[in-house]
Amino acid sequence: MNLLIIGSVAFDSIKTPFESVEGTLGGSATFCSLAASFFTQPGIVAVVGEDFTSGHKKVLTNKNIDLEGLEQAPGKSFAWGGEYSFDLNSRTTLFTNLNVFENFQPKVPENYKKSEYVFLGNIHPLLQKDVLSQTTHTKFVGLDTMNYWIEKALPELKEVLRFVNILIINDSEAREFTHEHNLLKASKKILGIMDLMRQPILIIKRGENGLSMFQGSHIFSLPAYPLEDVADPTGAGDSFAGGFMGYITQTENTNWENLKLACVYGSIMASFSVEKLGTERLQEITQDEITRRFQDFKNLTHFEMNHPAAELLGINCN
Amino acid sequence: MNLLIIGSVAFDSIKTPFESVEGTLGGSATFCSLAASFFTQPGIVAVVGEDFTSGHKKVLTNKNIDLEGLEQAPGKSFAWGGEYSFDLNSRTTLFTNLNVFENFQPKVPENYKKSEYVFLGNIHPLLQKDVLSQTTHTKFVGLDTMNYWIEKALPELKEVLRFVNILIINDSEAREFTHEHNLLKASKKILGIMDLMRQPILIIKRGENGLSMFQGSHIFSLPAYPLEDVADPTGAGDSFAGGFMGYITQTENTNWENLKLACVYGSIMASFSVEKLGTERLQEITQDEITRRFQDFKNLTHFEMNHPAAELLGINCN
Repeated sequence: MNLLIIGSVAFDSIKTPFESVEGTLGGSATFCSLAASFFTQPGIVAVVGEDFTSGHKKVLTNKNIDLEGLEQAPGKSFAWGGEYSFDLNSRTTLFTNLNVFENFQPKVPENYKKSEYVFLGNIHPLLQKDVLSQTTHTKFVGLDTMNYWIEKALPELKEVLRFVNILIINDSEAREFTHEHNLLKASKKILGIMDLMRQPILIIKRGENGLSMFQGSHIFSLPAYPLEDVADPTGAGDSFAGGFMGYITQTENTNWENLKLACVYGSIMASFSVEKLGTERLQEITQDEITRRFQDFKNLTHFEMNHPAAELLGINCN
Repeated sequence: MNLLIIGSVAFDSIKTPFESVEGTLGGSATFCSLAASFFTQPGIVAVVGEDFTSGHKKVLTNKNIDLEGLEQAPGKSFAWGGEYSFDLNSRTTLFTNLNVFENFQPKVPENYKKSEYVFLGNIHPLLQKDVLSQTTHTKFVGLDTMNYWIEKALPELKEVLRFVNILIINDSEAREFTHEHNLLKASKKILGIMDLMRQPILIIKRGENGLSMFQGSHIFSLPAYPLEDVADPTGAGDSFAGGFMGYITQTENTNWENLKLACVYGSIMASFSVEKLGTERLQEITQDEITRRFQDFKNLTHFEMNHPAAELLGINCN
């Protein structure tokens, strides 16, 4: 197990304008670990209820995801229901039943404690800090959060951010966090809260408009993968985080150039994730598909002045 | 004169949350030709009133813009007033006084009729077609339009689009045009209206989220240049079009790779344009600043796997 992921394993009920599904396997840790599994072996710290069957377990173990940290507790699993607008750009939460998640006290298994790469999915900042305090050898820690914690637990969020290398949030969260509309200004404020000694990184996800990554004076922007038909945006952000952290864990390299590549792999996983309902598409991706989509991203974003010398020597700079 | 630009030369009164100005030189042909002047010699076909002074003229002739097609008519110049929201992302038109523009019948001077590169700024599609019919040697024609014409003159717009190589519009216009929220679907519908024999191109501008360009199965996406302080978004789209068309005119090359570079130069000119009120910033840009911003765009968007062979040979693929 190389990448420790904390988050939710849940049953999602999803309505889109085209399809709907009830009680399908979801949750931040599920999407994140499935996406990361293409790059490294993730291990999950989460809790499920008695309704989590061997069939559900198999979805994760099929991808070699370590489940030693997946606690099974009496009662029902966390369940979430949401309905998307006609253009899939906004959604309404229909219900949130925390169930076994309500009293979840994350326990990091002995084997996980030396994890160098850790992703703290979107839960209460105090729980995120609690998990982090159980680890002893972290090299690179990522964190996701949401408007709810920015509104309800801002001091705790700011506290845990001091121990984090990379924060991954969306544009509306960044604006709410900083009261700045301009994302460049917002990024500076957020990075200012983090620990400068860690050379902190911020990724702002912009939905169909891609993402921007900030570190010091560096900025990288990547468009979203153009998709004509999005089936279900649920889990896109978690899939991005999984691809990003998975690639960083695989390559053990956090320099700026490699962080950019991690953004690309994260975006690739997010683009697959939304193509089918729930985790369906993440379960069936092939390595070839990932490689092709990497090339698609290059074609989508790169421009070159002529390189006659490179062409002459038959070196493909693209 | 190498690039024929038709559009408005106007006096703008602009209110932003920070500054305001009354009756400053503006209009689509003004911004477009100033931006294009860094790459080629543009010539304007437009009309001004008696309030257009030699001082205003000098702003354009200083940049070697050909004014043979700029008619001076009795009365006042076109005047526009607008006020921006606090985040500069939306604006309200305060007044539109067409004045001399009301009865404008564009006359293309003899010297302009053989223009190979033509940009039809945002006016009535019938006038755009009229201008085009006065030219005899066009190789590459660009067109801008707006919601107003999509709503009021759709058949005429569709008609003129058949004679155009590239349409440059914004995302809300593309959605209104096609009744498609998904921009990939919208792009296919719009390209389907244009003349397939011309291998038509569509650029959808997405404001602070950059742009996407479509041609056949090709897609290119470019983020906006990150700016912490935007002074005045007026003319950003026209400056983009000017930089884009200017670069294409200069290089006389419309292959896909060169179209991408034109997008970058267009975005560079737009990013300068918004840094000061009106055309102020466009009047003072240096070639060095353009070159630096080109490199900034590369750093902002490019990612590379290691190229050991290229590195060994000392070839910089970036």
